[in-house]
Amino acid sequence: MNQIITISREFGSGGRELGKRLAETMGLAYYDYEIIKGIADKSGLALTYVNSIVEHHMTEYYPIRVGRSFTVVNKPVTETAVFKAQSELIKELAEKEGGVFIGRCADYILRERRPVRIMVYADLDSRLLRCREKAKSGERLSDEEMRRQIIAVDKRRSRYYEQYTGQKWGVKENFDLCINTSGVKIKEIIPGLVEYKKGLS
Amino acid sequence: MNQIITISREFGSGGRELGKRLAETMGLAYYDYEIIKGIADKSGLALTYVNSIVEHHMTEYYPIRVGRSFTVVNKPVTETAVFKAQSELIKELAEKEGGVFIGRCADYILRERRPVRIMVYADLDSRLLRCREKAKSGERLSDEEMRRQIIAVDKRRSRYYEQYTGQKWGVKENFDLCINTSGVKIKEIIPGLVEYKKGLS
Repeated sequence: MNQIITISREFGSGGRELGKRLAETMGLAYYDYEIIKGIADKSGLALTYVNSIVEHHMTEYYPIRVGRSFTVVNKPVTETAVFKAQSELIKELAEKEGGVFIGRCADYILRERRPVRIMVYADLDSRLLRCREKAKSGERLSDEEMRRQIIAVDKRRSRYYEQYTGQKWGVKENFDLCINTSGVKIKEIIPGLVEYKKGLS
Repeated sequence: MNQIITISREFGSGGRELGKRLAETMGLAYYDYEIIKGIADKSGLALTYVNSIVEHHMTEYYPIRVGRSFTVVNKPVTETAVFKAQSELIKELAEKEGGVFIGRCADYILRERRPVRIMVYADLDSRLLRCREKAKSGERLSDEEMRRQIIAVDKRRSRYYEQYTGQKWGVKENFDLCINTSGVKIKEIIPGLVEYKKGLS
């Protein structure tokens, strides 16, 4: 059976890096931004619009491109369409070859396939530090502004997740393994995770 | 520096087995019932009484032996004395040679030494199954009664932990790694955990 790992992550926790390294080390496919692109293709909605919903969970109404014309769409309807396309796509990819799926409710969408569900989290200071390291050199946000941004992103992720899964976001009971990356070098824990995965039947 | 690992666990999750196997594999000392014995020696209170507080978190007043006479003691005072003796003992053991500590608020008591804090949990069905496997052959509790017992034990653990640490029991933010043992063979995940531990600086 295909190996499927889902990674849920707090913003700035290094979950994406963890997923990417895990996929590389285990020789698995890695799905992250590819999912956004696929949903856009599948739903016929504009890439930027799909991105705003799936990646940034934006809730504002604004003009989007549908086919060739710009229009203000009925947000709840298209949001549901996006989630439907997202579910179908994630299921297809899992069916086809498995792999590591970052975010996007994949843990819930693929629940019947019993994926290994990993949650990556860290304290706010560590997440701030990771965001600073990754930020472009021209970044002008103060620590306080960046902290607020981190909290806001997670609030949106949490709302989106709960809306579509009916489950509380980030609760340990919904995961097989929860990893605290505060002060941890992601690269260093990959061998342990690969070994741990082998122990799960 | 001494290696220190603390294991917090839901009742029936296999946390004790996990801790024991981890200690054996890593060649570390293992502290479980030894702590109860040490507290009794340290505090001069009866072993059965210390056990009722630290292990079973019993809250009833009842006659205990202090020195050579039986008496009804002021419970809050002795409970605090027990926690004090427990803290001192756990700190001494950690200082002396480190090791794996099962429960007993060791994650909190040793927080300044930055132990690797592991939380072990599982769904209720898995925990029921583990309890059944471990139960003596004469065990007559129905599944429903056993389920209630499991929940009651965790409720007492939770209350005790929160009373002495001021922290919420079992919240992922207070741990470095949270392990879901539902359907997992504890023995199989030990190599992964040993490897994971190496990756933590």
